[in-house]
Amino acid sequence: MKTNYEKTSVNRFHGGRRFPQDRNSAPHGDHKKVTVSDIEPDTIRVIPVSGTEEVGRNMTIIEDGKDIFVVDVGLSSKDVEIPGVEYILPNTKYLEDRKEKVRAIFAMNSHANHIGGLPFLAERLGNPPVYARLITAVLIKKQQELFPKAQPLDIRVIEKEQDVTIGSHSVRFFGITKDLPDSMGVRIETPQGEIVHTGNLRVTHKDGAPTEEWTTILNSFENTKTACLLSDSVNTEKPGASISEEQVIKNIRDIMTQTKGRIIFGAFPAQITRLVRIIDIAVELDKKIAIEGRSMKRNMEVVNELLMHKHPASHFIKVEDIEKYKPEEVVILATGSEGNEYSELIRAANNQHRLITIKDTDTIVLSSSTISGFERSIQKLKDLLSRQGARILHYQVSDVNSSSHPHRDEAALLIRKIHPTFFVPISGHHYMLTVHAELARTLGVSESNIAIPQNGSIIEIKNNGAYMHVLKEKAPHTKVLVDGISVGEVQEVVIKDRQMLAEDGMFVIVAAIDNTTGILCKSPDIISRGFVYLKESQALLREARILIKKVIEDITTAKKIETIDMDDLKQDVANDIGKFLLQKTAKRPVVIPVILKI
Amino acid sequence: MKTNYEKTSVNRFHGGRRFPQDRNSAPHGDHKKVTVSDIEPDTIRVIPVSGTEEVGRNMTIIEDGKDIFVVDVGLSSKDVEIPGVEYILPNTKYLEDRKEKVRAIFAMNSHANHIGGLPFLAERLGNPPVYARLITAVLIKKQQELFPKAQPLDIRVIEKEQDVTIGSHSVRFFGITKDLPDSMGVRIETPQGEIVHTGNLRVTHKDGAPTEEWTTILNSFENTKTACLLSDSVNTEKPGASISEEQVIKNIRDIMTQTKGRIIFGAFPAQITRLVRIIDIAVELDKKIAIEGRSMKRNMEVVNELLMHKHPASHFIKVEDIEKYKPEEVVILATGSEGNEYSELIRAANNQHRLITIKDTDTIVLSSSTISGFERSIQKLKDLLSRQGARILHYQVSDVNSSSHPHRDEAALLIRKIHPTFFVPISGHHYMLTVHAELARTLGVSESNIAIPQNGSIIEIKNNGAYMHVLKEKAPHTKVLVDGISVGEVQEVVIKDRQMLAEDGMFVIVAAIDNTTGILCKSPDIISRGFVYLKESQALLREARILIKKVIEDITTAKKIETIDMDDLKQDVANDIGKFLLQKTAKRPVVIPVILKI
Repeated sequence: MKTNYEKTSVNRFHGGRRFPQDRNSAPHGDHKKVTVSDIEPDTIRVIPVSGTEEVGRNMTIIEDGKDIFVVDVGLSSKDVEIPGVEYILPNTKYLEDRKEKVRAIFAMNSHANHIGGLPFLAERLGNPPVYARLITAVLIKKQQELFPKAQPLDIRVIEKEQDVTIGSHSVRFFGITKDLPDSMGVRIETPQGEIVHTGNLRVTHKDGAPTEEWTTILNSFENTKTACLLSDSVNTEKPGASISEEQVIKNIRDIMTQTKGRIIFGAFPAQITRLVRIIDIAVELDKKIAIEGRSMKRNMEVVNELLMHKHPASHFIKVEDIEKYKPEEVVILATGSEGNEYSELIRAANNQHRLITIKDTDTIVLSSSTISGFERSIQKLKDLLSRQGARILHYQVSDVNSSSHPHRDEAALLIRKIHPTFFVPISGHHYMLTVHAELARTLGVSESNIAIPQNGSIIEIKNNGAYMHVLKEKAPHTKVLVDGISVGEVQEVVIKDRQMLAEDGMFVIVAAIDNTTGILCKSPDIISRGFVYLKESQALLREARILIKKVIEDITTAKKIETIDMDDLKQDVANDIGKFLLQKTAKRPVVIPVILKI
Repeated sequence: MKTNYEKTSVNRFHGGRRFPQDRNSAPHGDHKKVTVSDIEPDTIRVIPVSGTEEVGRNMTIIEDGKDIFVVDVGLSSKDVEIPGVEYILPNTKYLEDRKEKVRAIFAMNSHANHIGGLPFLAERLGNPPVYARLITAVLIKKQQELFPKAQPLDIRVIEKEQDVTIGSHSVRFFGITKDLPDSMGVRIETPQGEIVHTGNLRVTHKDGAPTEEWTTILNSFENTKTACLLSDSVNTEKPGASISEEQVIKNIRDIMTQTKGRIIFGAFPAQITRLVRIIDIAVELDKKIAIEGRSMKRNMEVVNELLMHKHPASHFIKVEDIEKYKPEEVVILATGSEGNEYSELIRAANNQHRLITIKDTDTIVLSSSTISGFERSIQKLKDLLSRQGARILHYQVSDVNSSSHPHRDEAALLIRKIHPTFFVPISGHHYMLTVHAELARTLGVSESNIAIPQNGSIIEIKNNGAYMHVLKEKAPHTKVLVDGISVGEVQEVVIKDRQMLAEDGMFVIVAAIDNTTGILCKSPDIISRGFVYLKESQALLREARILIKKVIEDITTAKKIETIDMDDLKQDVANDIGKFLLQKTAKRPVVIPVILKI
């Protein structure tokens, strides 16, 4: 008995030709060969590696002849266009090639868009010191602990307005105390002038003017030469200034005072200041506070650890005990205002929460804004909550949130007061960046002094801060994906296969041919998933089997089996059956022939 | 030589158990067995079959002892949660079971959400007459022509405020001439009072008050007993009244007067009135008009056919000729303001349009609002257009659009003036319906007189219009999917397979065992797609092959081959390899073992 098996694991066949490009080329790994030219002396490079064609995944490189600073190592979460992938990370190839120059990572705030990539990528950058303000620093540490295999980080806590010398540069941080306690901006001194990165600081307003604290910050740029300003673009299309946090808190206080039933706040765990303020009000109103959600609990623990916030323990109750109190006594803080698949709020809304059952006397306050890409899941969350009869308050009907990104007037103020020679809008979709750039133009920054970057753009400043240009070559910027436990560059073939499988499913053909006659030993078997409902497609399968037999035998009985190229045979089967299925069903399943010679 | 093949096409194996429910049960077809109890005499049923848990797919049944009327037969397009499916249709099972009672379909306007289901479903309802106003009627006819196999429809054109007797009912339509020429509402007279369905009419305002025409319409309800009002909920959360179309046109006129370069309008083809007004202004400003997009061309042809709109042919140019004119002379009307995959605008933005190349002197006016679910594609469209350097105007920065759904004040006016005994909010996500219901409550409709329907809810009105209740049983309402050429109920198994394949891909194992010894003839073959990048996973594949061999041979060498249940064997292989792959990669591919006895 002799069995000739064909290797089928390497060859790739398709029914329909949906993707014209050569699928045998390996996009993956190609970038490893790319080496970007090194920087010249007396030049500064600004490279937004990612975060400029999306909201999320922030990472910007600032480099001169001697040092490299990395501002933010963020991540983006699930993207419907990249099925199966959990997180999307910045590309660190440029930095890996220059590891010895990387002096520091600056973490601008504690949101995943800014620090989420650290557990995956810090080691690739040679584990440089991470500079962050206190709360951000503690949260980075806690985040790192969730990845037991990741090396501990060298985290350095800095004070606001602290001056630090790193490498050959004086670096100064700025931020404000109250509004977003964990956020900051950074100014890097260079012989060509300062490079300023604002993070996503909002300019706190009171009665239409910046607060005293902000005025001081803004004035500190007055006598400084700012070579380049990098500033957040997410909300610059939104008119005016963002609602002040004071107003938000006032509205929340009104709601908490007037509401008769239980109040459940949905928020991001990173909105620490607001959560602290809500707890303050709850204590004042003699309510009990229950916190639900791992990350939110962790963050509130941090706040307590830091002794920033002290209230009698009697005000805090376990979620297990909420039913022991009168509804009007209970305030729940829960994660999931964006409708995340596994968040506490969506589970409660779905009636699947172990401890929280939504009642029709509940008031749910969604105290965060809709993040681009979450519109659908937030709609679902609201639908589910309203099905349970709960009353819902959200930022579109009531000012119970203020976004953490500067609006148009704030962005304008930053540009005017920091008065940079060169302006680079970052953070946000390309269109948001162009709107921000247009704003800078109307404020007098000349068109040639503005660079709207794409991910990986290399912007160079030269001639003592007099000249800026964007290189033709880009830093490696393909997406790095967290797919299961693997962390790597885009494996385009795999993703495309997933997309094809998602649309039209698969159709595996198993056929055994007699090694001497070329005749099929029996009718071919078909294994199909995600294509059509097989129980109702028996006629189609019968027709397909007859066609498969014909296509194979037309070839295998025409000449000696040994002379037949099995790859060609499989390609023919895949093409013909693909066409047949397309014609019959208007679907293009991935067709995979397994042909055995027996 | 003897070959025993195992049938593998029926059995279904999985690595990880992601979906706990019994996958062998057939959700498909189950609904066919459900028969809803028949209506009692002197009862009216209102059944929103779909469109009340989504925006789209509108279809509402109004039934009494003798007659059934169907308001709208819409569709919804692609949904990321149902991969591979082109359209989602209303379920017609309830109507199919009562085909002989279906007297009419009322098409409230020409949007796909209201008429898109007709080519697929009209025959299932026994092809009843379709009542529509002129433009809607012509567009329904044109739409039907795109489906050569569909039967011609019996379309009856009605005038606004026309009275028609259908079955044993007097039916009256209402609408206004200018604002949305193809929209209407319907009033069905019954002994219990009128059943009023407003479609999605906006109440046209001028200087804060309804126009004269609207005042007449609203006053006509004054001395009428309205048993039940069904009204559109999409925008009732939005405060005030929608911007008047006059204001929108004024803004568009300003833009067209002031813009120096070429102007490209992106709009829905159904926005006929606005398109006509834009053409009027273009002619007035002596510009040339090019129309691009099949559906938009079709709609404008309809307008011309109907002699509603006459301008010298010299003002219309072919898109092929746009480059022959000065940019400031050219106005292009194109489909795709929502960023649809194959629309003209997205192709131009992608630099893939045969005739239109976006220039940095172009002004793009996106004259439609963001439809729930299209946020992402519109963001993409704006990014691509801004990459080409074009200036973009859209409704969020400039009033160049007014949504076609009534805002809060308009909805309130409708409720007040129509003063129904019972109120049923329809059209929109569940949360939108609850907001609309809350509005009705604040206007004095008592809670017990409001029913917030789910898809398929059967609402009965009895006792001469004095009593309303919602039945426990529902009309069949599972989604009907257009998947390739098949049109049928949800095939849950197929969709779940697609979702699993999309997330983690597939892993087919082909193993041949010696029929006498139970030993594998050779190392098993593996065919995998969408799982991991095989070229970089050779070690994993080697380990998997060894494990597969062990799992199989542990069983096949322990006892006689003939006594082994091959289904059990495959289940064991699928489970063990699934677990192994999960542990190694944190992915759960669909594992399919093909085991041959040779």
